[in-house]
Amino acid sequence: MTVFQPRCSIEQIEESQELAPKFDDQGLIAAITTDYASGEVLMLGYMNAEALRLTVASGEAHYYSRSRQCVWHKGASSGLIQHVEELRIDDDQDAIWLRVRVAGNGASCHVGYRSCFYRTIPIGNHPRAADLEFVEQKKVFDPKIVYGAAPNPTLL
Amino acid sequence: MTVFQPRCSIEQIEESQELAPKFDDQGLIAAITTDYASGEVLMLGYMNAEALRLTVASGEAHYYSRSRQCVWHKGASSGLIQHVEELRIDDDQDAIWLRVRVAGNGASCHVGYRSCFYRTIPIGNHPRAADLEFVEQKKVFDPKIVYGAAPNPTLL
Repeated sequence: MTVFQPRCSIEQIEESQELAPKFDDQGLIAAITTDYASGEVLMLGYMNAEALRLTVASGEAHYYSRSRQCVWHKGASSGLIQHVEELRIDDDQDAIWLRVRVAGNGASCHVGYRSCFYRTIPIGNHPRAADLEFVEQKKVFDPKIVYGAAPNPTLL
Repeated sequence: MTVFQPRCSIEQIEESQELAPKFDDQGLIAAITTDYASGEVLMLGYMNAEALRLTVASGEAHYYSRSRQCVWHKGASSGLIQHVEELRIDDDQDAIWLRVRVAGNGASCHVGYRSCFYRTIPIGNHPRAADLEFVEQKKVFDPKIVYGAAPNPTLL
């Protein structure tokens, strides 16, 4: 089981080979997930210590669901397992980057799109600046079929 | 100035073209920044409403510095401005993705590396699993020269 080191100095955190992740006051660390082949950002999730340890040990992405308040093996219900090809940590060790290959149809978004980031915000100070544009035109799957009556994780 | 809509329904947030970002209880939203050409994740930052509005209006990345507690025009002191080619928002609108071209030497990490994610966590349950590996062998710049005596933003 992966051991996390105590955080002792800035030099240790930034320049050493010691894994000393910083979990926030809710015990979570942010995790960015990109597609290994295309580089596309698929999602931003959160991990607690257990989810990070499970991800390191299994090579499959585990997160902590803030809406369901439990560790979550991504793909357990949908089949869309994320196989981790590379796992990185950032300079101050408060963010994780997972480079993954997604099983099945390759989608990672509960709405049915490939990436959770399926809309752009137009840049520039013009009147319609708040109108999002869809970059994915079509859903990869129908969430009603895949998730059935499970509650939507999106919170207002 | 970009107007943010109130968050009224899951359908509005996930399926509409309305920009209704969710800021957390500290008024922040997570922002993933990738290199437009290579797709590499450069950093994970945070924005408050002002930083997001300034980014949309100017096309240059602005963040909120949690350690310095102020809006931060990335590159203002280092010259390493991030020009935003594309700005995306995720399904539940609580995360931003910036695709940028970095000015100057192309670095985005205050430690001197190109990406903040310059170390990997080895995958698998083996004894040396906690030993990080450097994927960037050499710093792009010397932070002592670029930032001088400015305090290091990394917190224990």
